[in-house]
Amino acid sequence: MARIQMYDTTLRDGSQGEGVNFSLEDKLQITAKLDEMGFDYIEGGYPLSNPKDTEYFHRVAEMDLKHAKVTAFGMTRRKDIEAKDDVGMQALRDSQAPVVTIVGKTWDLHVTEVLRVSLEENLAMIADSVAFIKSCGREVIYDAEHFFDGFRANPEYALKTIKAAADAGADAIIPCDTNGGSLPEVITKYVDLVRSELDVPLGIHCHNDCDLAVANSLAAIEHGVVQVQGTINGLGERCGNADLISVIANLVTKKEGYSVLLDNNLHNLTELSRYVYELANMNFRSSQPFVGSSAFAHKGGMHVHAVNRLARSYEHIEPEIVGNERKVLVSELSGRSNIVAKTTKFQLDNDPELLTRILEKVQDLENEGYQFEAAEASFDLLVKKVAGTFKPHFEKIHYRVNVESDDSHEPLTEATIKLKVNDQQEHVVGEGDGPVNALDTALRKALCPFYPALEKMQLVDYKVRVINSAEGTAASVRVVIESRDEHKVWSSIGVSENVIEASWLALADSFEYKLYKDEGTFLE
Amino acid sequence: MARIQMYDTTLRDGSQGEGVNFSLEDKLQITAKLDEMGFDYIEGGYPLSNPKDTEYFHRVAEMDLKHAKVTAFGMTRRKDIEAKDDVGMQALRDSQAPVVTIVGKTWDLHVTEVLRVSLEENLAMIADSVAFIKSCGREVIYDAEHFFDGFRANPEYALKTIKAAADAGADAIIPCDTNGGSLPEVITKYVDLVRSELDVPLGIHCHNDCDLAVANSLAAIEHGVVQVQGTINGLGERCGNADLISVIANLVTKKEGYSVLLDNNLHNLTELSRYVYELANMNFRSSQPFVGSSAFAHKGGMHVHAVNRLARSYEHIEPEIVGNERKVLVSELSGRSNIVAKTTKFQLDNDPELLTRILEKVQDLENEGYQFEAAEASFDLLVKKVAGTFKPHFEKIHYRVNVESDDSHEPLTEATIKLKVNDQQEHVVGEGDGPVNALDTALRKALCPFYPALEKMQLVDYKVRVINSAEGTAASVRVVIESRDEHKVWSSIGVSENVIEASWLALADSFEYKLYKDEGTFLE
Repeated sequence: MARIQMYDTTLRDGSQGEGVNFSLEDKLQITAKLDEMGFDYIEGGYPLSNPKDTEYFHRVAEMDLKHAKVTAFGMTRRKDIEAKDDVGMQALRDSQAPVVTIVGKTWDLHVTEVLRVSLEENLAMIADSVAFIKSCGREVIYDAEHFFDGFRANPEYALKTIKAAADAGADAIIPCDTNGGSLPEVITKYVDLVRSELDVPLGIHCHNDCDLAVANSLAAIEHGVVQVQGTINGLGERCGNADLISVIANLVTKKEGYSVLLDNNLHNLTELSRYVYELANMNFRSSQPFVGSSAFAHKGGMHVHAVNRLARSYEHIEPEIVGNERKVLVSELSGRSNIVAKTTKFQLDNDPELLTRILEKVQDLENEGYQFEAAEASFDLLVKKVAGTFKPHFEKIHYRVNVESDDSHEPLTEATIKLKVNDQQEHVVGEGDGPVNALDTALRKALCPFYPALEKMQLVDYKVRVINSAEGTAASVRVVIESRDEHKVWSSIGVSENVIEASWLALADSFEYKLYKDEGTFLE
Repeated sequence: MARIQMYDTTLRDGSQGEGVNFSLEDKLQITAKLDEMGFDYIEGGYPLSNPKDTEYFHRVAEMDLKHAKVTAFGMTRRKDIEAKDDVGMQALRDSQAPVVTIVGKTWDLHVTEVLRVSLEENLAMIADSVAFIKSCGREVIYDAEHFFDGFRANPEYALKTIKAAADAGADAIIPCDTNGGSLPEVITKYVDLVRSELDVPLGIHCHNDCDLAVANSLAAIEHGVVQVQGTINGLGERCGNADLISVIANLVTKKEGYSVLLDNNLHNLTELSRYVYELANMNFRSSQPFVGSSAFAHKGGMHVHAVNRLARSYEHIEPEIVGNERKVLVSELSGRSNIVAKTTKFQLDNDPELLTRILEKVQDLENEGYQFEAAEASFDLLVKKVAGTFKPHFEKIHYRVNVESDDSHEPLTEATIKLKVNDQQEHVVGEGDGPVNALDTALRKALCPFYPALEKMQLVDYKVRVINSAEGTAASVRVVIESRDEHKVWSSIGVSENVIEASWLALADSFEYKLYKDEGTFLE
């Protein structure tokens, strides 16, 4: 079996996509998820570009990754300077990342017109940069930017650039179709040429500007490259990068002789795809191959009938292989297997009747717009509720939120809450910078005297998304709140037509989860 | 030049996609649009399946199409009946469509397990059906369903089915990858085999379940098929059909020797794509190759700098070729060159002092958490404000939002707004499902009497994101609102520690933008 290395750049190239913006916590969580599944390289960021990426490399160094190597991305040194004196090179070294990916210019036009250096100086910049990072004891991956366009324009010079990287000690060379404009026959022809000239392992890095990024990546693998760079869900600038979800699924289900990820991890692809969309605060793409919610949906009556008779008659693979599921009804429903997988920690396997009731409840809530992929805390509470073991730590009687604004000062926000706690009524008021902050303040005022551990808990993220945007501002909104204490990060969810009510629901779940967790009454 | 026939099935196979539903008028308008551009075949519907499709064929017969042939779609006759007595065959004949596309079974498994007829009867069904429609004087296209899966399972029988169609007089044979599970190398291998066996023109019909429908279509063309079946924007069941937009754009801009559509119609592709989304009531896919609004978007400062110097350095084709446009995103990663590019429509190139002030303002706002990459409307208003040409259509004096919830009913939301409009004071109250809806309702109440065009505007999306999540609920939030009228979609942004205030700011910008846009006082 030939190992094809999966190099994920969701956190770097993917975050160049319009509207994609990961927080530091998001990046660390995605890193953990990718590592767990057996991705080989995780390009975490560009240390020089912003403080968040610098901090990422400090934090990720403390994580205990089981398989993946984290890589730091940067450009070759600037012109007319020694590599060791270049701030970019220093930032790459100081990131302490075990692998460094250096991108350099291949296309003579870019060298002279964009970088504005001589062709010779560019070769020296490549060689010096690779050699410097190698001398720091790191693995070096060399990304040959615009390789295919550059090769077409000036093949001799393009080859010189990658030979400079190879001679300086690069551990792998990655021809990049940076503009995404190449057809498969161009990719394979040039990959063949490079293989005949170089003895270094090759990879491929494609963009989807021609709708061909997945096809191009597969074609390059067929012609001997051993690494594929891409992103989860094809996130990325313009039309995105090659979608590693599709590349992986095709390699495993359609080809023979290739090994990817860690064993038996293909069934996590759907969950991975949705997790990344959630953290990026993007909607799932229902028609996405393999993992989309419609990828195995059957609409035409004839088809559904046939599928019922004989599943494979209208499905190219079994949906379970990639963790997806057949969808025959119009609604977007979680399947039993999801629920089974999610409730294993509660050891409910031998209570099929309870499982059925949980499934029904989840389906009802999903119809209202809930999504539990990124809201484990609310899901765990739901299981307790259905199982009859949920005993609320507090009960809302009433809340009111008021926001007033004129031009003389910042808007004033006030929240009042009346709660029952331990059979006592608490009636409190809090103010805040906004309605959620005011509700949070009031809730703490009411609860901390009873549960002092709540003081250690803080909200770390707050996301809102419209579910059915056809209705404009009258549509439902889904609020996801991420909270943490000294030990753990958890997410809760609320759905309502009213963003304040949805926020309240998510907030209340977050507080309940914290209290149950501290009591140790979740069976985990 | 080899003519590659474009066979569009947006109106039939495309309408199998989840959430796609064209009215009769929609179908007629799309037909006219496709004809105008030079599509060769337009599959308008399945006459037997519903009255709308039957009516479509009556109406389309009255249209004066200049190039396209309309085709009616149907299955082979039912078993054990003469073709002339089959209601499906009769409906195809009665549609009066000049071309009829008959789909038949190729895969022995489907014949015996789904149709439940003998392998011989299926061959007779194919031959009889093709012969009957030919005897009615129509052109017949034969779609060989599940051809690639069927060929793999039983090559001999699969060949017999298409030979039956060819011998009965089919004018073209279309091997279909109905389940979308085939790789390009499978497609080309079997296309070669069929070509060596048959002397009838071949086409290709692909689905995108492996993310390869466009690649598969192009590969088949390379191996001699002369017709491509697909849909606009790749609409269709599950993961959709081959996107003819991408197929056409690739054939014309990346390959040589092929002729498609009528002359000089490539620049209408973007408009066609958006027109079909509009009629299907679907959101545009911003990352769609060639025609997406982000397909030529540039975010990173380095890239933008380079694009300004030399467009093709970061673009695989000129966006104008397909009727699209370059889009420079103003983002945290960007610098002066982004602003220069974005303000060219205002013709500020020769006012460097103004440019500097805009840049400073953008940087200040970006530090507060604004991001203009997805908020063109707010950016255009900002340019007017800095340039001193902004004269507000309304001024806020005061607003108040109140949300109350107890357990007896849904939360109640009320917004009051006091505004100055044309030197009059308007004091209004609105209620809504949530605070933004209530503010929107109140704002319309105050403004529509002065500006009736606002009634045509609606909010289509609402997104909230926490900017600095370290502070939890006290952090700033960024609200982006997407609005539309009959002509245009635009986005506006608001940032505040208070989600209500941020929503108000974005809402106010959206209303102002609509009013300025209608006055034509943006210099675009």
